[in-house]
Amino acid sequence: MSEKSMFTTLCYIEQDDKYLMMHRIKKKQDENKDKWIGVGGHFEPGESPEECLLREVYEETGLTLTSYRFRGLVTFCLGDEMTEYMALFTADGFTGTCKEGDACEEGELVWVEKSSIESLNLWEGDKIFFRLLEEEIPFFSLKLVYHHDGSLQDAILNGVRMER
Amino acid sequence: MSEKSMFTTLCYIEQDDKYLMMHRIKKKQDENKDKWIGVGGHFEPGESPEECLLREVYEETGLTLTSYRFRGLVTFCLGDEMTEYMALFTADGFTGTCKEGDACEEGELVWVEKSSIESLNLWEGDKIFFRLLEEEIPFFSLKLVYHHDGSLQDAILNGVRMER
Repeated sequence: MSEKSMFTTLCYIEQDDKYLMMHRIKKKQDENKDKWIGVGGHFEPGESPEECLLREVYEETGLTLTSYRFRGLVTFCLGDEMTEYMALFTADGFTGTCKEGDACEEGELVWVEKSSIESLNLWEGDKIFFRLLEEEIPFFSLKLVYHHDGSLQDAILNGVRMER
Repeated sequence: MSEKSMFTTLCYIEQDDKYLMMHRIKKKQDENKDKWIGVGGHFEPGESPEECLLREVYEETGLTLTSYRFRGLVTFCLGDEMTEYMALFTADGFTGTCKEGDACEEGELVWVEKSSIESLNLWEGDKIFFRLLEEEIPFFSLKLVYHHDGSLQDAILNGVRMER
């Protein structure tokens, strides 16, 4: 079992109808290998979601967030062995200069038009929460259960299984 | 370090302007000793907040929740060593018969008038989130930092230190 916390943050930073996406092509051992995801990472001891968010966004992008919202909690299950709880944020204010392209060691950072997001290589369940974000629901709790091959087995929104 | 998950649920069940409160007087080794808290407990592997909620409420009270809301996430720090993330729910619908008084092994269950809650022996920070619940804020993230003697050192709401 990993020593890392099973609690993480995941943030989608918005500007001009684009989201800042990370293409995870750099690490060899990576559950997100070749996928496009937001920025974020594992909680350090004692951190609140907001403290983890600000630290991780700064480390990965060079940006300091000045306006953000806690949008949902995602329970991410991969098979029976791995469960991760992701505090999902969006942000629409920041200072600093973004490490675009190659400068981030976790992956490549690219601003992607919101209308093009679903054509990227995403986790299948991420398409569900992009839709929930667009619907401006104040807060949601979404459980996503994946098979080992990465296909989505089940999606449960606020305790109710979703029709798919 | 405890083997238990550091992720828990905490639920305040409402009926007729009362909350179902648990008086923690039964366990000898209990960080909540003699305090009044809601019902809930630690996540089992793979559980979503809602799955943990339903299981823990049923185990502790005998009630099956039929209507509930995820109201906030509390980052609870006791000194530097212990951090717990509490998914905070309220519930206003249930079936079954409540194990009132002595029947629950975790503590004594009592329906308490909402107007009397603050006169109970509560964690100091719990008074803050009772007020946030009454204000019907859609969702909040509250970090509560306690000294080892149980006094509240700091309260941070959605990333901003609260004036107290």
